[in-house]
Amino acid sequence: MTKIGILGYGNLGRGVECAIKQNDDMELVCVFTRRDPAGVKILTDGAKVVSVNDIQNYRDAIDVLIICGGSATDLPKQTPEYAKYFNVIDSFDTHAKIPEHFANVDRSAKEGGNIALISVGWDPGMFSLNRVYANAILSDGADYTFWGRGVSQGHSDAIRRIEGVVDARQYTCPVESAVESVRRGEQPELSTRQKHTRECYVVAAEGADKAKIEKEIKEMPNYFADYDTTVNFISKEELERDHKGIPHGGMVIRSGRTGWNLENRHVIEYSLKLDSNPEFTSSVLIAYARAAMRMHAEGQRGCRTVLDVPPAYLSPMSDEELRAHML
Amino acid sequence: MTKIGILGYGNLGRGVECAIKQNDDMELVCVFTRRDPAGVKILTDGAKVVSVNDIQNYRDAIDVLIICGGSATDLPKQTPEYAKYFNVIDSFDTHAKIPEHFANVDRSAKEGGNIALISVGWDPGMFSLNRVYANAILSDGADYTFWGRGVSQGHSDAIRRIEGVVDARQYTCPVESAVESVRRGEQPELSTRQKHTRECYVVAAEGADKAKIEKEIKEMPNYFADYDTTVNFISKEELERDHKGIPHGGMVIRSGRTGWNLENRHVIEYSLKLDSNPEFTSSVLIAYARAAMRMHAEGQRGCRTVLDVPPAYLSPMSDEELRAHML
Repeated sequence: MTKIGILGYGNLGRGVECAIKQNDDMELVCVFTRRDPAGVKILTDGAKVVSVNDIQNYRDAIDVLIICGGSATDLPKQTPEYAKYFNVIDSFDTHAKIPEHFANVDRSAKEGGNIALISVGWDPGMFSLNRVYANAILSDGADYTFWGRGVSQGHSDAIRRIEGVVDARQYTCPVESAVESVRRGEQPELSTRQKHTRECYVVAAEGADKAKIEKEIKEMPNYFADYDTTVNFISKEELERDHKGIPHGGMVIRSGRTGWNLENRHVIEYSLKLDSNPEFTSSVLIAYARAAMRMHAEGQRGCRTVLDVPPAYLSPMSDEELRAHML
Repeated sequence: MTKIGILGYGNLGRGVECAIKQNDDMELVCVFTRRDPAGVKILTDGAKVVSVNDIQNYRDAIDVLIICGGSATDLPKQTPEYAKYFNVIDSFDTHAKIPEHFANVDRSAKEGGNIALISVGWDPGMFSLNRVYANAILSDGADYTFWGRGVSQGHSDAIRRIEGVVDARQYTCPVESAVESVRRGEQPELSTRQKHTRECYVVAAEGADKAKIEKEIKEMPNYFADYDTTVNFISKEELERDHKGIPHGGMVIRSGRTGWNLENRHVIEYSLKLDSNPEFTSSVLIAYARAAMRMHAEGQRGCRTVLDVPPAYLSPMSDEELRAHML
């Protein structure tokens, strides 16, 4: 039984709680929160809600701490801090800052004699794995990653900050013709605009200037200006009814050539269609919690990523069972 | 530079030779053959062709021996034998006999102080990996593997053994409607017939009874009787022109549910579209040769499978480069 602590109880923390319920070898011991614990209601009978200020008292009660904070400001502080006291896992997803985060976490985890797995999820995470596998196999080729159709929290937030906007939901969508070309192994050169479109559903305040809102969205640098963006104004009720979920997904495709004269073409594709982005990410986190336990038991210390973990370590099956049934 | 020996120079051996050419850190030292070496012409300048009887003289010249024999009779003998003297890799694909093969190879490899990787390729191999990853992530779900559209050598051979057949090519094809249902996450129960069809292209001898040949194919137990099979009679020229390649592929799909009440659905799919089955398998073998070197250098001894190998070990990039660019 692997005893799990969850730090932070937002969408991701709740997802981890659900994933623990689905795995018989996992047990939720407690949820740590920065809020008043009395105000945080969780779903699991027998698990506690504890102030993060008391987390040190749980060093012996927890095998792996899953840190469910945000990548912008929470994780760069939390993961190095708690890797001193616990085996930890996070889903740090600021790609450009992974080397720096890795170095900080590695130092702490070694100091504490713990194992830390960072950037666990689907991108970074399962998509990264698939990029590495496909590149190692097809050394002559081209990589493509498409995201969506799915909700981008960052882009939805950016729309909400516009004057006159009450609420908003933004979907990132892959351009189907681009995906088809890549799947045929044509190795097209694709601009940002040719890969994804952005679909916005916006609830405007009464009397707000909708034309102005639409223009502001479409011209927003970095977020929307480089994309074909559509803006749909809907009611608050419609947003609640039709856009409540947090679906996402995407695909990693590599096409490449083999043969003495590169005469043969191959396409490798990994794709995800997810009803709930945070719950899927949580399910990945829990599988890697199992791996973290095994790596720690072997004497491994310090920071690792999904690229360092043998696939067998994620499974509750023994190596013998895996060879007999899954290979 | 990893020095490679190839044992057996059929389609797979030639594929490995091509894959070595594509990887700057790999070098083909020699091809070992059971035939008269004088009669075997290879493509690589500077590499030798040597009788398998002299293989012992090359123990110091080779880092990894890639054994390119067949799974039915060659590999069960060859891999345990040569694992005593070399780090070895094979693509043993008789799923039911993997545990027995593993035990035999493990014993020899430990005795010789070598590392052995068995059942490397795409199924078993990349498909196995993806089954394990997807099962570890979505613990509540269903697995589906579809093969094709691709040439089945075994089924083509079975047709060729029928009286009056000069030559034949058999394609295994996934049933598109079944694939679509699985992709929608419907978790259908599918019979053998509902998953794949079999498409046969047959060159009949002059004056042969085509109706009888077609009946014999369609009623052949195990091979065709459980499938919807179509038989097309074509000329020898058409077979040469349109069916010379060895394409294959397929997909591993797992759909599953998450959430406190399993209210959210997810679909994970890994798919391959391959112009040349043996060349793709060879490319996987060469990536794992790199991993075998690293595992041996770490002091690992004995038999392993793809499930035991961290993804990073397949890549020519350093761990730092992988974290910076691929994660």
